[in-house]
Amino acid sequence: MRPRPTGNPATSKSDEAWRTSITHIEPNRILVRGYALDELMGRVSFGDAIYLLLQGELPPPAISRIITAILVSSVDHGAMPPSTLVARNVATTGAPLRAAVAAGVLGFGAYHGGDVEACMEVLDQGLDLVRAGTPYTEAAETVVHGTLAEGKRVPGFGHRLHTRDPRANKLLQMSYELDVEGEHVRLLRVMERVLGKAKRTEADPIPINVDGAIAAICGDIGMDHEFGAALFIISRVPGLIAHAHEERLRERPMRQIDPKDAVYDGPGERRLPEGRK
Amino acid sequence: MRPRPTGNPATSKSDEAWRTSITHIEPNRILVRGYALDELMGRVSFGDAIYLLLQGELPPPAISRIITAILVSSVDHGAMPPSTLVARNVATTGAPLRAAVAAGVLGFGAYHGGDVEACMEVLDQGLDLVRAGTPYTEAAETVVHGTLAEGKRVPGFGHRLHTRDPRANKLLQMSYELDVEGEHVRLLRVMERVLGKAKRTEADPIPINVDGAIAAICGDIGMDHEFGAALFIISRVPGLIAHAHEERLRERPMRQIDPKDAVYDGPGERRLPEGRK
Amino acid sequence: MRPRPTGNPATSKSDEAWRTSITHIEPNRILVRGYALDELMGRVSFGDAIYLLLQGELPPPAISRIITAILVSSVDHGAMPPSTLVARNVATTGAPLRAAVAAGVLGFGAYHGGDVEACMEVLDQGLDLVRAGTPYTEAAETVVHGTLAEGKRVPGFGHRLHTRDPRANKLLQMSYELDVEGEHVRLLRVMERVLGKAKRTEADPIPINVDGAIAAICGDIGMDHEFGAALFIISRVPGLIAHAHEERLRERPMRQIDPKDAVYDGPGERRLPEGRK
Amino acid sequence: MRPRPTGNPATSKSDEAWRTSITHIEPNRILVRGYALDELMGRVSFGDAIYLLLQGELPPPAISRIITAILVSSVDHGAMPPSTLVARNVATTGAPLRAAVAAGVLGFGAYHGGDVEACMEVLDQGLDLVRAGTPYTEAAETVVHGTLAEGKRVPGFGHRLHTRDPRANKLLQMSYELDVEGEHVRLLRVMERVLGKAKRTEADPIPINVDGAIAAICGDIGMDHEFGAALFIISRVPGLIAHAHEERLRERPMRQIDPKDAVYDGPGERRLPEGRK
Repeated sequence: MRPRPTGNPATSKSDEAWRTSITHIEPNRILVRGYALDELMGRVSFGDAIYLLLQGELPPPAISRIITAILVSSVDHGAMPPSTLVARNVATTGAPLRAAVAAGVLGFGAYHGGDVEACMEVLDQGLDLVRAGTPYTEAAETVVHGTLAEGKRVPGFGHRLHTRDPRANKLLQMSYELDVEGEHVRLLRVMERVLGKAKRTEADPIPINVDGAIAAICGDIGMDHEFGAALFIISRVPGLIAHAHEERLRERPMRQIDPKDAVYDGPGERRLPEGRK
Repeated sequence: MRPRPTGNPATSKSDEAWRTSITHIEPNRILVRGYALDELMGRVSFGDAIYLLLQGELPPPAISRIITAILVSSVDHGAMPPSTLVARNVATTGAPLRAAVAAGVLGFGAYHGGDVEACMEVLDQGLDLVRAGTPYTEAAETVVHGTLAEGKRVPGFGHRLHTRDPRANKLLQMSYELDVEGEHVRLLRVMERVLGKAKRTEADPIPINVDGAIAAICGDIGMDHEFGAALFIISRVPGLIAHAHEERLRERPMRQIDPKDAVYDGPGERRLPEGRK
Repeated sequence: MRPRPTGNPATSKSDEAWRTSITHIEPNRILVRGYALDELMGRVSFGDAIYLLLQGELPPPAISRIITAILVSSVDHGAMPPSTLVARNVATTGAPLRAAVAAGVLGFGAYHGGDVEACMEVLDQGLDLVRAGTPYTEAAETVVHGTLAEGKRVPGFGHRLHTRDPRANKLLQMSYELDVEGEHVRLLRVMERVLGKAKRTEADPIPINVDGAIAAICGDIGMDHEFGAALFIISRVPGLIAHAHEERLRERPMRQIDPKDAVYDGPGERRLPEGRK
Repeated sequence: MRPRPTGNPATSKSDEAWRTSITHIEPNRILVRGYALDELMGRVSFGDAIYLLLQGELPPPAISRIITAILVSSVDHGAMPPSTLVARNVATTGAPLRAAVAAGVLGFGAYHGGDVEACMEVLDQGLDLVRAGTPYTEAAETVVHGTLAEGKRVPGFGHRLHTRDPRANKLLQMSYELDVEGEHVRLLRVMERVLGKAKRTEADPIPINVDGAIAAICGDIGMDHEFGAALFIISRVPGLIAHAHEERLRERPMRQIDPKDAVYDGPGERRLPEGRK
């Protein structure tokens, strides 16, 4: 009986080509979306290269700046997030860096990083109403009250720690100044007011969080839902790496990691150097 | 017997604090290495934020530019690399994007992305000799011939496809122009000559590859070995995302993916727009 | 500013105990669901230990036999499944075995191993109707036609390769002989007839597949939906390991793996030795 | 330029078949190592199927029993191990079960589950000496003192919690009773005595741990080093699943998991039912 082909003769026939429009490779030549990689190097920022890969074109200057701000916004959030604890718990076992990063990425679940995509969907539902003639406030009320009536949290709002998320505020301010905001950001802001009235007193607001800001901006610049979530993954991978590396550098192997016992001993608060302002 | 504490009384005592110097978090305030995250946003590039996270300080301008070029250099390499095939094979099963990314990262094995770290180790061995008084050529011969004598490939040289890696050349040229090159780059160049004489005819060179260039530059700017490998991971995650996304967008689920059947149908070769040159 | 506690004072207070009912550990003593692990060793099969972990009790003999048959049924399916290709693609890069296994598990997406859970949900929808007085045939028609009307495939039926899945047949036959079949298996069989009439000629049936058989049996023995999927994961991990190991043993690193080029060269067909029949 | 083949013309030619000896698949027929899968189902234990996959043949009865005991021995170790915390931290983010399992597997690092393979290597070094004529005690002294002189822990000995590992004792007792022990187990026992004298007082022994027992037994039954580690992975996956499932069932999402706060509230200690003894 040996050797003989294994597998389906029917599928074996399907030797047809499949297509990819991302990168063309030939000996000594690498074209990403048509641009020579060695021409991109030194000419574009990493944020631009990421946008080019995902969207197919280099971004105009305003979008380039907001994409970079999004990528910087989520680069780390200390030792508390479950994904970071995952990376540290893998690192403490002596596993390689790649394993810690991969495991950390798996810790971006529906409740952690998943708000970007969920919020984009809610915004799209509301904007479907707006485009059909419903005023913004009414559309916001429909989606907010509808979500709350199902006993669910409205994605893109609230944070277990921050009552006013500094990253969200900065992103929304930049999107205003760079004139990239549109109907998604507008609806998100109306939803914030509706949600404030619906649930809480003024002393206890449910503000837009960083995921909500990223979702609305990504919607306004025309990115696919999945890419909103993708920007969060890309942004946080360096944070996972920094924590996995620090874990092995500073702590003993196989320790029991209690997130509540972490004490910060890095540099005190400092301002950016003059040239950076 | 229930309920009762489970686990080691001895380890239960160790409620001591542990320390992290990466990010300080308190309500409405996030300080990365001492800088407010919302001040960094809009002021620094994503490459700078990554360097800040890993190295603890913002990079000077020349290092900022070379780090960005490194991050752009490895952003994608088409559908051929095993890590990309892994991401596509996971995507074709209907698994979520995060799963495709995590699995792809696990495909950065010793033979694929692992050259950066291995090359940094070889360079350090050679530079130990140089610092002890051995001339560069002799040091290069010792490590190159030593590696070959063990029947191993010299890490940082050669590519299964490129006979002259355009990414390596551009990185080395930039490190020269930006004046960030030092003894690591110098030794790498000498090793290339030694290796050329040792093994091949002129028609069949074993040139410095992109991993070798990254390794030498990371050595010269004082990065930890592990961070050389980390830059490759960070750089390639967007490529994994682009391929996983395209797989689901353009192909049917559960297909059998033959890497050799891929046909590029994206934009033809094009030059950067004027403003980018 | 250093050192200072990092993280939320509010959450820092929550030092309350949390509970687990799986395994009690103290020095020199390990109790799984109350049984000493060293007493279980040598006394129970691996299938029994798995059932004990998941369900909290040791299985009665008939359930013990069917659980073991389920675990054996999915242990491998050759080199074609995407999850297996993922494990091989990771292995070819020189990554460690753990990385290949973890990546392979990530390749159990909605279309690959995901049918067990999806089929259990469809069966529960149908049985809700049955319990409310609807006859089996009508309940089966409702869920089958409802699924097809949404343009979806009915989970638990059909296979891209097998027109008559030998694993499904054996499992259903065993569940009959061991008298563990119940309303889930009954509904599944009625659905098969309904689906046959709905879509195809007799020459082109859509039979119950192994996932459907596992789903119905797990339903009849009272397992949680998630555990149906879990049995598939547990079963296939050894297959992922065998392929990752063989890949490194027999093939060169960094090869391009075309699933359609695999040729089987193992032992020819053979019957179980006498004592095993 | 479009469409055109992407990739190396040289590698494109290599359409040659590659070989696998694990499983032959054709429509309606699955042969694992030559045996029809539906004939194996109901006839062999899951442990036997695993051994068949890894080793290529069904195990004789004594080896069948010891393999099953090994697989049962490591099925869970409570909430303390880093890999289990990883699975729980992934589960608390709302990620799917597969993600929790894959991440948990990545937490089997060198210090956690890695002892099996490391111990097999040390045993082989010692047995090389024995086969060259060195007495067992001298060989044990050479490898134990050599390892300690490098400042390393001897793999296969000691446990952060157990001073007398009940799993190791049971495995070694079974290997004696089943007559599967050989030179590996013998050397391991001699090493235990040598290590006891070398380092500690009688009050503070460094006993053989479960990884050491598995390593020696796997050596004596002729398994590859990698498969020793593989048995640990296969064994612990069900434990990862039980914990990920319990985490979502009993705890609130996005909680901060402190391993030291776990309280066991499952069944009190109980003995196996009569028929199982």
